[in-house]
Amino acid sequence: MKTGNIVAFEGPEKPLITMEKQVREISPDEILVKNLYTTICGSDLHTYCGIRKEKCPTVLGHEITGCIEEIGSRHSGKDGAGLPLNIGDKITWSVFSSDPDSKHSLEGMPQKGDDLFKYGHAQISGEDIFHGGLAEYCILKKGTAVFKIPDELPLEIASTINCAIATVAGALRLAGNVKDKTVLITGMGLLGITCAAMCREAGAAYVIAADISHERLNTALKFGAHQKLNLQTNDALSIQADIDIAFDMSGSPDAMEFGLQHLGIGGVAVWVGAVFNTREIQVEAERIIRNLISIKGLHNYNFEDLKNAVTFIGKHWKDYPFMDVVSKDFSLEQATEAFEYALKHKPLRVGIRL
Amino acid sequence: MKTGNIVAFEGPEKPLITMEKQVREISPDEILVKNLYTTICGSDLHTYCGIRKEKCPTVLGHEITGCIEEIGSRHSGKDGAGLPLNIGDKITWSVFSSDPDSKHSLEGMPQKGDDLFKYGHAQISGEDIFHGGLAEYCILKKGTAVFKIPDELPLEIASTINCAIATVAGALRLAGNVKDKTVLITGMGLLGITCAAMCREAGAAYVIAADISHERLNTALKFGAHQKLNLQTNDALSIQADIDIAFDMSGSPDAMEFGLQHLGIGGVAVWVGAVFNTREIQVEAERIIRNLISIKGLHNYNFEDLKNAVTFIGKHWKDYPFMDVVSKDFSLEQATEAFEYALKHKPLRVGIRL
Repeated sequence: MKTGNIVAFEGPEKPLITMEKQVREISPDEILVKNLYTTICGSDLHTYCGIRKEKCPTVLGHEITGCIEEIGSRHSGKDGAGLPLNIGDKITWSVFSSDPDSKHSLEGMPQKGDDLFKYGHAQISGEDIFHGGLAEYCILKKGTAVFKIPDELPLEIASTINCAIATVAGALRLAGNVKDKTVLITGMGLLGITCAAMCREAGAAYVIAADISHERLNTALKFGAHQKLNLQTNDALSIQADIDIAFDMSGSPDAMEFGLQHLGIGGVAVWVGAVFNTREIQVEAERIIRNLISIKGLHNYNFEDLKNAVTFIGKHWKDYPFMDVVSKDFSLEQATEAFEYALKHKPLRVGIRL
Repeated sequence: MKTGNIVAFEGPEKPLITMEKQVREISPDEILVKNLYTTICGSDLHTYCGIRKEKCPTVLGHEITGCIEEIGSRHSGKDGAGLPLNIGDKITWSVFSSDPDSKHSLEGMPQKGDDLFKYGHAQISGEDIFHGGLAEYCILKKGTAVFKIPDELPLEIASTINCAIATVAGALRLAGNVKDKTVLITGMGLLGITCAAMCREAGAAYVIAADISHERLNTALKFGAHQKLNLQTNDALSIQADIDIAFDMSGSPDAMEFGLQHLGIGGVAVWVGAVFNTREIQVEAERIIRNLISIKGLHNYNFEDLKNAVTFIGKHWKDYPFMDVVSKDFSLEQATEAFEYALKHKPLRVGIRL
């Protein structure tokens, strides 16, 4: 029986514990992956700090790159783009699995499908242990979308595809045609800067990056933003034209309201950031109606979005400084150090190299 | 030179004045219409009472049916469905004209196009007099969508097509596929009951009609609603399932918030009613995001919506009691009486038969 190390999270303010566990046999629909690299996402940090509650013990980490170690006998043997899957292939996969035949899956929302399971968020129970990124292996359940990634793509970039990058791909889907549009993006974390780059590649005429951090705003310029806007100063006055699309990646009610106030006729607001409780957003109905404005919420993404994210990164990872996103990486044994570093320095990402 | 009567509105609390005016020559792109029937819309009543401000003097009334008296030499001679237009044809037309080549028109929002002109709302100036329903004639400007209506369609029904019915057609366009969906409609005026009927014909599984008036709720049941819901009593508790689509035709912030609170995964709220200033709507961003909810504002409609409205009414006017919508009609000379009746009795519509 194969064994592997995991780093167990047993609750906020408790030490992360490295332990060796048996890797169970996979079922015929599953894939066994050897994890290669995991980036630590903002939601991992929230759970680590106790801001977000997960059932413990759990194995954190859902932004993972791995290589295929074993393919179940009943698996289609193909990835989401129809490419054949082989032992040793480097892959990314959806942060969730769900029943593809359930109502929401059939309506294009697999992230809300029945039997939903989320990697890096689930409680360890019995033999079901290897389902997070802070471990040597991950077992991919039935209903997980898998995509091969190019061999030359650095692992630290590949790892962010299935969370940050795919979510941004979903946000662009909701925004509709971005070509020739004026775009405002509030929140210049990894989602915000990726959104700037994707909007540029999709032909946006003008991309305004807004945040309250000078450093993040400067990074945004390197990711394709035409203009930076510090929401804490009076820069806001420098918005001259109506905004066509306002993405919010920050979760800040002020930022969401700022976006709505600047949308012109037919404008679209795409809200992504507020996956936590905030004060209520004040929405002026008459303006929404007379200006034919839409507000669209997005949580996670569908499989087409993940496919588009893989394609985007494969094509453009050298065109923007995605290599600088992970500021430092650590070994699995250094997981606690990695979290503490991330909390102290607030880089876009830290990585765990397995 | 041809002359015709108009009823001029010179401001709130001033008497409506009937006067005879010269009908100017039409330009080559225009159509001269002899008005046959006008229904008085809620916005006409708002202007009459001074709740809504329009530049005076004006000719109120924009829900009009007329017959063609003259077609300009440069007009295409075809209606919006491609049918040939002839003298004597009964027609409905868009409540607005705009430049079809302007940005918003090309983006499918002709109601926000350049050179926007709205029938029944414009100030009388110089020779430009005949542009409302409370007059014997109406001159249709370039950029107005015209549709022939069936000869057998009663005028009092035909008159509501180009405002209430077409707006509802636009609301259904924004809602997306209604088939098999659970629908909530708040506000059971003419838009609400028409929405119930359109949703039924589009295959909605369950239509809930909400209002605070018993009488309007009972009318809604005759227009296809499966269930009535009095928002002033505790009926609200009787909503068992998640709502897929929540239309608001009322403009009430409480109703809009009620709709949002009951939307399930992937739900869509379509806001139509609040074309006036209201308190701000309190929106819970996390719920919008996690439930993948959209909010879409609609003001007026596009030409495809108007076409769909003509088709819907032509097909279904006998399937629901649309004949009961106009509770009483008046002559042009009785216009003041018509407005006073409408304000006192609050019927769905009163009509002016010309």
